[in-house]
Amino acid sequence: MNRQHVAKLCSESLKVIPIGTSAECIAATLDFYIFIFTEHPELRIHFKGAETFTPEDVANSERFRKAGQRGMLGLHILPTLYTDPDVFLGYARETTNRHRSYKMGNHLWHGFFPIFIDFLETKQKLDNETKDAWLQLGNEFADECLTYLASNDREQ
Amino acid sequence: MNRQHVAKLCSESLKVIPIGTSAECIAATLDFYIFIFTEHPELRIHFKGAETFTPEDVANSERFRKAGQRGMLGLHILPTLYTDPDVFLGYARETTNRHRSYKMGNHLWHGFFPIFIDFLETKQKLDNETKDAWLQLGNEFADECLTYLASNDREQ
Repeated sequence: MNRQHVAKLCSESLKVIPIGTSAECIAATLDFYIFIFTEHPELRIHFKGAETFTPEDVANSERFRKAGQRGMLGLHILPTLYTDPDVFLGYARETTNRHRSYKMGNHLWHGFFPIFIDFLETKQKLDNETKDAWLQLGNEFADECLTYLASNDREQ
Repeated sequence: MNRQHVAKLCSESLKVIPIGTSAECIAATLDFYIFIFTEHPELRIHFKGAETFTPEDVANSERFRKAGQRGMLGLHILPTLYTDPDVFLGYARETTNRHRSYKMGNHLWHGFFPIFIDFLETKQKLDNETKDAWLQLGNEFADECLTYLASNDREQ
């Protein structure tokens, strides 16, 4: 699928999670973490200090309120950059740098996007083309993260 | 000037600072900090631990090599997001969050862009329309950073 089309489909699917400072926007971005803690409790181990949080704890958490805004902004940025591959890949490497201290398992980079698609589907019906667009973008992003991690490990 | 035109002019002016992992790309992004330490030594106080660095120290610094890549990536991201105002303003707020620990003076948010234009001019001739485009984008970005800082200060 060409890059412009992927960018368009992914961006359109994000309209259900608008970015902004209103209570509605903040609630919509926090919903992602409520979804994770509800549907994927096995991932809670990756959130230090919140390993035993319930979805209700997440809903009342200032930490996850901020994480939701930051994370969903990042997801909005990805399709916007996708038509400029050099900048898109640079953003992947920079995202890797920012996640380095979390010592994430490598499988999570690719594993993230199918979970994110599932989350988007809680808010709207998605057609297969849009899911394929997210997987294409997500695979390219995760591939660059892993390539960059491997090259940095060699340097150290 | 309409947002699409601003985005186009700013993006084109950034071709002289490509994003990538090659030695040339890394050198081009590091050049920005060499420029700052050469032309604006009064700004060195904002770089804790590097207050007495010479331009040569910057040129040989792993810290500024990384900062160059991160900072110039951010500059590439700005015009790409500019046609999507909600995401652009979200990115301004997130950039503010990331700079909070530096306790920057408020004047630096607007002050940055004329300096960045001067840097771009060391690499190419810029017409007035492109400079105006950067100032329009930069003012909108800095305005949001200051609004956000003020609203957060009220909350605390």
